Amino acid sequence: MDISDVLTRLRDFTDERDWAQFHTPRNLVLALVGEVGELAEVVQWRTDEEVLEHARTAEGHEALADEIADVFTYLLGIADALDIDLDEAVNAKITKNAEKYPAHLARGSNAKYTELP
Amino acid sequence: MDISDVLTRLRDFTDERDWAQFHTPRNLVLALVGEVGELAEVVQWRTDEEVLEHARTAEGHEALADEIADVFTYLLGIADALDIDLDEAVNAKITKNAEKYPAHLARGSNAKYTELP
Amino acid sequence: MDISDVLTRLRDFTDERDWAQFHTPRNLVLALVGEVGELAEVVQWRTDEEVLEHARTAEGHEALADEIADVFTYLLGIADALDIDLDEAVNAKITKNAEKYPAHLARGSNAKYTELP
Amino acid sequence: MDISDVLTRLRDFTDERDWAQFHTPRNLVLALVGEVGELAEVVQWRTDEEVLEHARTAEGHEALADEIADVFTYLLGIADALDIDLDEAVNAKITKNAEKYPAHLARGSNAKYTELP
Repeated sequence: MDISDVLTRLRDFTDERDWAQFHTPRNLVLALVGEVGELAEVVQWRTDEEVLEHARTAEGHEALADEIADVFTYLLGIADALDIDLDEAVNAKITKNAEKYPAHLARGSNAKYTELP
Repeated sequence: MDISDVLTRLRDFTDERDWAQFHTPRNLVLALVGEVGELAEVVQWRTDEEVLEHARTAEGHEALADEIADVFTYLLGIADALDIDLDEAVNAKITKNAEKYPAHLARGSNAKYTELP
Repeated sequence: MDISDVLTRLRDFTDERDWAQFHTPRNLVLALVGEVGELAEVVQWRTDEEVLEHARTAEGHEALADEIADVFTYLLGIADALDIDLDEAVNAKITKNAEKYPAHLARGSNAKYTELP
Repeated sequence: MDISDVLTRLRDFTDERDWAQFHTPRNLVLALVGEVGELAEVVQWRTDEEVLEHARTAEGHEALADEIADVFTYLLGIADALDIDLDEAVNAKITKNAEKYPAHLARGSNAKYTELP
């Protein structure tokens, strides 16, 4: 699906409830934090293997999909409130990261986020 | 842009650097938390008005767009690692929320997240 | 109360339940994130005035106190798992910050976190 | 050290810089999120073993101690802004948790956070 279609659905949802008044940038960032917290709760006492196993059950898949969707909708709301085009932002950032972490230098290294030039 | 196109770009970026080995669900959730923290730092000492003003400057727009893009790319990575289709997840969640918060009951109320049936 | 007394109570609580096995550094950081998310949820749709008003009600005071206590206990658990003395850490950090933000330069400026030398 | 002594040091630090004006509940929660993000960044690409090893080096110990101290100082600031006594809050919560998770039922189970009565 196109990101702009998701945005249209979200704006309609918000408008029908007259909730735009609550969707200030800081409110939305705090709401995003709440949803990220719920996502963290799903993985906090599980190993990676247990998380993956959980995600393969119907219940676990739905729980994780719901949390991820919640994070995404608030993130899209933040971008919208700030007049930021998420498409453009992501493409620009991937391009920046490609320059920051040249493939031949960064290959297989978890030092990427701290030590690479 | 279609979300699946973003995902393709991200997978290519990751594969070219052989970074998939680090992209376990829990690593990615922790990385998401790091990026959400950076987004929070941009708004933490500003009022909503100051955030909006900052977002209208070239520098502020880029800083906010970068943080939002970082959160999005890790979120998409988490969904991908868990074999969750972000499109489907978001659409399913908006439908659920529409049932949970009927427009005629929820209109204009910030009680939505706590008290509505 | 002395921080070391809180730590003793927490260790006893954990030992009685044989939960130390789950209290690895990363598990605890993720659990901390979950609790910070719950704290954010209490303030996300409220203004500062509404938060303060909420904190003066019996129900709001207890809800906020509980979330703050949850964040603190996980934070203390993280420090303990890493063999970090929270007392020492806090005192060392306040001293560092006093050097980083000299009172005569930082007075009344919210630029503190970005621009001061 | 007594928590009230830490609080006194923090209040003095804040007053000397006239920063209390910025320390509203929501600003402080957002600042806490920023610091939790920095703590997450230290552990995000490391295994638990690597985190523990990092914490045993001088550099890693200081980095982790600093992040933990930052989280703690903002948490204490939030409690103070809301007129919540952290000591009381923590003791009340440990007592509540002891009732919620009786030792004989909860022993050795990571179901504690989801399924225990």
